[in-house]
Amino acid sequence: MMDETEFLSALRTLPLHPGARQLRDDCALIEIGGETLIFNHDTMTEDVHFRPNADLADVAYKLVAINLSDLASKGAEPVGILLGHSLGGNDGRFIEGLREVTAEFSVPLMGGDTVAATGASTYAVTAVGRATSRPVPSRTSAEIGQGVFVTGPVGRAMLGFEGHPEHLANFNRPRPRLTEGRALAPLVGAMMDVSDGLLLDAFRLANASNVSLALDSTLIPVADPARADECMRWGDDYELLFTAARDVRLPVAATRIGQVEPRGFAPLVLDGEPVLNSAGLGYSHG
Amino acid sequence: MMDETEFLSALRTLPLHPGARQLRDDCALIEIGGETLIFNHDTMTEDVHFRPNADLADVAYKLVAINLSDLASKGAEPVGILLGHSLGGNDGRFIEGLREVTAEFSVPLMGGDTVAATGASTYAVTAVGRATSRPVPSRTSAEIGQGVFVTGPVGRAMLGFEGHPEHLANFNRPRPRLTEGRALAPLVGAMMDVSDGLLLDAFRLANASNVSLALDSTLIPVADPARADECMRWGDDYELLFTAARDVRLPVAATRIGQVEPRGFAPLVLDGEPVLNSAGLGYSHG
Repeated sequence: MMDETEFLSALRTLPLHPGARQLRDDCALIEIGGETLIFNHDTMTEDVHFRPNADLADVAYKLVAINLSDLASKGAEPVGILLGHSLGGNDGRFIEGLREVTAEFSVPLMGGDTVAATGASTYAVTAVGRATSRPVPSRTSAEIGQGVFVTGPVGRAMLGFEGHPEHLANFNRPRPRLTEGRALAPLVGAMMDVSDGLLLDAFRLANASNVSLALDSTLIPVADPARADECMRWGDDYELLFTAARDVRLPVAATRIGQVEPRGFAPLVLDGEPVLNSAGLGYSHG
Repeated sequence: MMDETEFLSALRTLPLHPGARQLRDDCALIEIGGETLIFNHDTMTEDVHFRPNADLADVAYKLVAINLSDLASKGAEPVGILLGHSLGGNDGRFIEGLREVTAEFSVPLMGGDTVAATGASTYAVTAVGRATSRPVPSRTSAEIGQGVFVTGPVGRAMLGFEGHPEHLANFNRPRPRLTEGRALAPLVGAMMDVSDGLLLDAFRLANASNVSLALDSTLIPVADPARADECMRWGDDYELLFTAARDVRLPVAATRIGQVEPRGFAPLVLDGEPVLNSAGLGYSHG
């Protein structure tokens, strides 16, 4: 039995499409007919990603939203989604969630596959988007001297998960930053969405770009200042984390939380302290 | 709880991409930059599509192969695959099967998603292909007067499933007819792959094209003539079923098994007997 890291390493020994970017990015790219299409595949499994008593309308909404969030981080506009659906739960509620999220973000259904499920339900979406700006932003393109920015506060999904009424929607129905991503794409160095925790995702972005990110925790916008450490480590907020010239005039609201520095010993420097290991920085799948 | 037909009907009330063809075809199409990309998504679930003691190398091989078979029925050449993988089985064997099938059909890995599984494992593939001939063949384009053809015998997967050594590979490692599909695409009316049983798939093709297919069972090539009825109803052979002018010179081996007639009472006429209902014709998912 392998963990996720071992499995990814094994996958990298297979023939990879050049657009797979060595499986080090969230999305795959295909250049075709002068356009760039962008693909993302995410799965949600009962007991792992949602509770057995979850409203499947929320599950459907979130599943599509998190796929669109990856497209947002590429500055892409959605083309459509393919659905892999296990029958057997409250499929009517699932359809209702799909109806809401596809209408809200104007993304049509392209096709998919329906299977009978035994045991835990699994739902999968492949989202297809079209690049609106090239080069397509990636995790690997941060430049030394740029500022590090985030489009909004982190920790709201955590509060929603805990049941705070005003933040429930942040956990159950995250909003992909598609408009923000498209506006930012021509201006950014690196960009990614914050799915697993701001500090962990910043650590990964730094490694992918082979730089160090120096962050000032007092600048990081958090949903609950009394629990700032947790907010910076909790995932599911789907804000965009990006680097850009420090003096650029940004077309969307964003907060500068640090800067890109030459690669030192540590990928991340938090309030002057080097962070060498990603353990404890956020949520690792696997 | 919905069955597959009800769920598909509900999905059709959502905003659909024009390339979804009303979810009545196996694949979705996107026209972009003067090219046509073709998408297919298939899932294999433990206990439903494979036995818990199956070799995951075979499961990985078959999962990719059945996705490529849908591309074959469109005359497409594969561009790449996205993988949705549940960790927790013999993931090393899964990788080995992926290695063999991706090498054999020259289809690179583009990306995907890995999740921790609880309970039954689910594996999903989205295959992306590029149309080589337009219009892209579909189920809906059979023309009255054309012949009905199949590229090879049906029933070999059934015999393999039952353990006949010389047919094991037909069940465990089906061969997508990519070369045949590309050669046939410019010549055919309608085309689809035979995944759920020849008679059932012919019934569906007839309905999609709004014609009747008159088949002569004595012409249908079967793996075991003593069990012809079963062979015509068993799935998993992945031969191509297509319609084409009766006098066309076909570029690949294929057997004419009937002809396309104006729509009568029944979508299928087998040896002169109308078949009004699809029950008992093959394997229905759900």
